[in-house]
Amino acid sequence: MTCRDLSKSKIGRCYYCPIIDDKAGLINDPIILKLDEQRWWISIADSDVILFAKGLAIGHKFDVKIFEPNVDILAVQGPKSFMLMEKIFGKKITEINFFGFDYFEFAGAKHLIARSGWSKQGGYEIFVENTKSGLALYDKLFELGKEFDVKPGCPNLIERIESALLSYGNDIDNNDNPLECGLDKYVNLDTDVNFLGKEKLKEVRKQGITRKLMGVKIESKEINVAKSIKIIDEKNNEIGELRSGVYSPHFGKVIGIAMMFKPYWNNSQTFKIELNGTSFDGKVCDLPFI
Amino acid sequence: MTCRDLSKSKIGRCYYCPIIDDKAGLINDPIILKLDEQRWWISIADSDVILFAKGLAIGHKFDVKIFEPNVDILAVQGPKSFMLMEKIFGKKITEINFFGFDYFEFAGAKHLIARSGWSKQGGYEIFVENTKSGLALYDKLFELGKEFDVKPGCPNLIERIESALLSYGNDIDNNDNPLECGLDKYVNLDTDVNFLGKEKLKEVRKQGITRKLMGVKIESKEINVAKSIKIIDEKNNEIGELRSGVYSPHFGKVIGIAMMFKPYWNNSQTFKIELNGTSFDGKVCDLPFI
Repeated sequence: MTCRDLSKSKIGRCYYCPIIDDKAGLINDPIILKLDEQRWWISIADSDVILFAKGLAIGHKFDVKIFEPNVDILAVQGPKSFMLMEKIFGKKITEINFFGFDYFEFAGAKHLIARSGWSKQGGYEIFVENTKSGLALYDKLFELGKEFDVKPGCPNLIERIESALLSYGNDIDNNDNPLECGLDKYVNLDTDVNFLGKEKLKEVRKQGITRKLMGVKIESKEINVAKSIKIIDEKNNEIGELRSGVYSPHFGKVIGIAMMFKPYWNNSQTFKIELNGTSFDGKVCDLPFI
Repeated sequence: MTCRDLSKSKIGRCYYCPIIDDKAGLINDPIILKLDEQRWWISIADSDVILFAKGLAIGHKFDVKIFEPNVDILAVQGPKSFMLMEKIFGKKITEINFFGFDYFEFAGAKHLIARSGWSKQGGYEIFVENTKSGLALYDKLFELGKEFDVKPGCPNLIERIESALLSYGNDIDNNDNPLECGLDKYVNLDTDVNFLGKEKLKEVRKQGITRKLMGVKIESKEINVAKSIKIIDEKNNEIGELRSGVYSPHFGKVIGIAMMFKPYWNNSQTFKIELNGTSFDGKVCDLPFI
């Protein structure tokens, strides 16, 4: 299912893994947690990977049990998350490496806690299996978090785009392959491990990609990307499509993530884009922004 | 993929088809349109059936092309939809039988129009492949629809629960089989057609189901079902779970759809349910309500 070689993976580690189909189209880009030699959790983005896995397993008659565990994820994110979590779980929690995980006791239950999360600021994700203990932990986080001004929140669009955290369904989907999405380091074509779409990806690598995800900066103060928006050059040729965008206070303009066609990858490339009936100037750049 | 026998299905017809996995758990309950002997559209509820189909096809090495067509569905629903649609497409459109479809020309494009929709009031679904023509049709529907007081809208929770239109992800999911969900007439176990989960369903039919979807009426004026709510008897035993609920003006109380355990299927069965910390009385009934 994944083009990333997990043959040397270790128990207690998280792995960001593109999942692809036979045409190398992205099915999802989850974090996969290795719980045991024969047991994995796939912490998915917005698509039903479980149905893909079930279909594959049934078709191939694999001897595997696939089910949705009763887990709710609680994310504690941001630079102060380390101090807050240490107050509850002690020094040991700050000793977890990035993308490592371990088990911690709270209110009579064990919680798998990973140093991960959909944010570049760092923090933890708590995989709550025992709801009662999880709710008590939630309250405790707010109680002890007062001094850090902890608040409920959700992923911040500005931060996610500035740090180029891809959003499945927005920036990438089943029509894109991982090489087009800049996920090259998670594509292991030179191993003996067989995976779906491997031949297709070898072909893509040999011929080279014809489009790729890049950053764009647009001379506008606001944007609303409900669906992808055409990016054109001065001669009105379509040279790419904007897939996400947001006003960035850091840059004082709109930034976004766009799929750009091959001849237009140069960092000096300028373009035009129509937002709400008005044409704006833009410029291509590398990802991440910050 | 489906437990419904489609071997005698006809081109130009829609079929409501439970899709199940090898354990007979529901993957989805789409409408399947037979476009041609070798070509089908699966108009799905909220789950990625396409991933299940792709996984199955890859695993089984089926010679099949599975892709998401570029289709947006426009629904024209309600008793006046027939008059409105006739004004645009002529008498021929009112001659389509329930769950039949045909092609109709508008603004230079052909549209597949089916007499279907997620409403018991009747109406049409227009499968828009040509966006430009579809947008023009949308405008035309409002222009000619003025005399019928046509308005944009979405499925109405009261109407859907009163008429027991099941909602995938709310009333039913992968942990339920079609016999538990009252979909018996779409389960064809006595045919030669082989399908996933057939043996499992035969076993279920032989042993009998131990829970089933039923209607409930609750002596309350309001409800909010964010997740399923326990239904208990006077002795505090759990006898079922409420999965959807809404205040029904017709009954002057809350009605809902619940998965009830076997000994409690009698229409005279009363129960207790806690809503926002207050206990209310309820009674089991058959579906649909109206």
